[in-house]
Amino acid sequence: MKVFDLSEEIFENIRKTAPVVHNISNYITATDCANMTLACGGSPTMADDPEEVAQVASACHASVINMGNTAGYFEESMLRTGRANNEVGHPLVWDPVGAGGSSRRNAVVENLMNHLHFSIIRGNISEIKFVGDKSSSAKGVDADASDLASESNIQEIASYAKTLSKRLDTIIAISGPIDVVADADTAYLIRNGHPMMSRITGTGCMLSSAIGVFAAANPDHLLEATAVAVSAYGYAGELAYQKMLKTEGGTGSLRTFLIDYMSNMDPNTFLKGANITIAEESKVTD
Amino acid sequence: MKVFDLSEEIFENIRKTAPVVHNISNYITATDCANMTLACGGSPTMADDPEEVAQVASACHASVINMGNTAGYFEESMLRTGRANNEVGHPLVWDPVGAGGSSRRNAVVENLMNHLHFSIIRGNISEIKFVGDKSSSAKGVDADASDLASESNIQEIASYAKTLSKRLDTIIAISGPIDVVADADTAYLIRNGHPMMSRITGTGCMLSSAIGVFAAANPDHLLEATAVAVSAYGYAGELAYQKMLKTEGGTGSLRTFLIDYMSNMDPNTFLKGANITIAEESKVTD
Amino acid sequence: MKVFDLSEEIFENIRKTAPVVHNISNYITATDCANMTLACGGSPTMADDPEEVAQVASACHASVINMGNTAGYFEESMLRTGRANNEVGHPLVWDPVGAGGSSRRNAVVENLMNHLHFSIIRGNISEIKFVGDKSSSAKGVDADASDLASESNIQEIASYAKTLSKRLDTIIAISGPIDVVADADTAYLIRNGHPMMSRITGTGCMLSSAIGVFAAANPDHLLEATAVAVSAYGYAGELAYQKMLKTEGGTGSLRTFLIDYMSNMDPNTFLKGANITIAEESKVTD
Repeated sequence: MKVFDLSEEIFENIRKTAPVVHNISNYITATDCANMTLACGGSPTMADDPEEVAQVASACHASVINMGNTAGYFEESMLRTGRANNEVGHPLVWDPVGAGGSSRRNAVVENLMNHLHFSIIRGNISEIKFVGDKSSSAKGVDADASDLASESNIQEIASYAKTLSKRLDTIIAISGPIDVVADADTAYLIRNGHPMMSRITGTGCMLSSAIGVFAAANPDHLLEATAVAVSAYGYAGELAYQKMLKTEGGTGSLRTFLIDYMSNMDPNTFLKGANITIAEESKVTD
Repeated sequence: MKVFDLSEEIFENIRKTAPVVHNISNYITATDCANMTLACGGSPTMADDPEEVAQVASACHASVINMGNTAGYFEESMLRTGRANNEVGHPLVWDPVGAGGSSRRNAVVENLMNHLHFSIIRGNISEIKFVGDKSSSAKGVDADASDLASESNIQEIASYAKTLSKRLDTIIAISGPIDVVADADTAYLIRNGHPMMSRITGTGCMLSSAIGVFAAANPDHLLEATAVAVSAYGYAGELAYQKMLKTEGGTGSLRTFLIDYMSNMDPNTFLKGANITIAEESKVTD
Repeated sequence: MKVFDLSEEIFENIRKTAPVVHNISNYITATDCANMTLACGGSPTMADDPEEVAQVASACHASVINMGNTAGYFEESMLRTGRANNEVGHPLVWDPVGAGGSSRRNAVVENLMNHLHFSIIRGNISEIKFVGDKSSSAKGVDADASDLASESNIQEIASYAKTLSKRLDTIIAISGPIDVVADADTAYLIRNGHPMMSRITGTGCMLSSAIGVFAAANPDHLLEATAVAVSAYGYAGELAYQKMLKTEGGTGSLRTFLIDYMSNMDPNTFLKGANITIAEESKVTD
């Protein structure tokens, strides 16, 4: 499978590039996002001042726009970062945190989508469905607990991700009990991770920052780089959970160990733990 | 004692509700507050954009207003959060961080108290005294080190808490060497916790977020839910301190272990460690 | 050597004073800066509201201005903090985060330098060179990887630090593979720390906060207090790295252990690990 064939090269490119990744983040998870960027082998720049973000973004290997904070100057900083990034043509990751959760947040989603082109969009199923079909809630197709990926609906979610990828010309990464990473042609299904990870704040945000590092160093293989990032991150979570049990810890230790295992991840460890398959063939309709 | 009789139900209500708790926090302790909310079994929403807080607060089981950050849009966000919360009638926790510490901060205290009704106010003795009697410093009764709770003045502090509870129609939680949680009729004295906890930033903020979870799932027993939260948190701190010694750690490990033990807290553990008594009878004067 | 002769007194002064240190920080590293302040034996006040910073700064033993965040009200808060601090004459530490990294950031550098007097400036070689010679990039002497301190250029860097110290009337602390702490007459070379520390976000910010504590309690020995802080911090990093290996951890654990070892640092531990020498005599030219 292509993702496994490329994985050693993907890690090696990070090591060789040590990419500088610009993150527009939020104050709840920014420290963890910066530390995750470093753990993955990247160098974080967290500049958010609207007066400097364009200059900073242009000089970085990739940018990650995390929509956690919409207040004050943040919407403007996200726009300027994205525009500068699009001009230089580097990978742009978007994490539409809380999309669908408030009218204000939804307006920011629309504004960003109208002005920017994203290379990769990562969110949970609710966020991605709102991004994909803004009128969804009115039509009753909004994500809720029953929409979460499971063995019974995963092929349908994979198909949705491929369709959305084609329509928005972007890679779609949907986090959940089973993760999906798709472009228009291929949807990888990733069965890594542990439910306990959802009891740490910022696990989604940190994953988006990790994807930023993998994408920054592998602009020619964005789909596979994203799938490797998602799978490696999930596997690090599994290892962290095991160590948490062994040390009789709880969610505080789990958070520390998650960063630990990402900082020690290498191609061999990855190949030992990665659980990736390809979704069944399905027509992509537009 | 009522607090022990109800404790199993209080934990069980959190497990059944998995309450969504809205926190207006500050960037120093927000990550820890979100992780503490999760550790207690709640789901944190940290939205602070004045354009969305009312909508978010209305949809949550409870809100926690942490006054750590008073700059920029934060005062407006606190007001809008509190108003929306008061309209739907859910528990509202207030942490008047630094009350009495600067003219600016004192003006925010007054503004919030003029417009909002709090279900629970938690602070240290200095903060609570400023909230209770704004002219206090002029009259020389401001809190200082000698005001900290001890065996010799604890009954007096308990009586003050009850009086204040009656006057402000709110539960009063005073953190210190001995904690006090009181309504107009009953003051629980809680002898849990460890002095080393004060060498971690945000131990007060995290406790307020924990109280938010316990209150959100137990709106009919706010006094007991608050007392259980304060005692469980203190006991988690004791256990964390023991593990810190055992692992030859320091304050960094203590912080991690505090969240660990709260994430593993259950009714049995709680009952093993809780040290709660009721303050002597005392007249409440107004 | 004077720094060793004074070290016991320097630690003892912190213990006796328990200095309150005001930090204007940034939301990426503020939690860690507050926890590091506490670990060193200080009490952090992180107030950043322009309406209160002057009052807060005046009441503290020292202030630390971390330039990480330049957006919104932060530039004004930095100025007001510095002015209030300069009026009462307490130690003022400046961490010019990212100086030279963007036009916006460089404008803030100039603004702060025009209006404030700093007691201690701490940064990496790039930041310090920008502070010292703003036109440097035009003249091709901007810091890059080859400028990093090594055995072959350390005397030259020490000489530069002394010259800059004399010109700006401030202590200069340059972090790198070998650290330099200098006034106009003496440059201490400090060979503590571990390269892995650069894989944690905020190691520079936390060190500046640590220096704030050491300076606050030792205003009469700022040079030695700064050197002790830098060396103790580096040694804590070495110990943290050893424990990280022993516990099979990664960068998440390293961050926790760094705070652990600073919270347990005492004069004896310091003297066991401190690696400080004095740079060769060299003319200071202006």
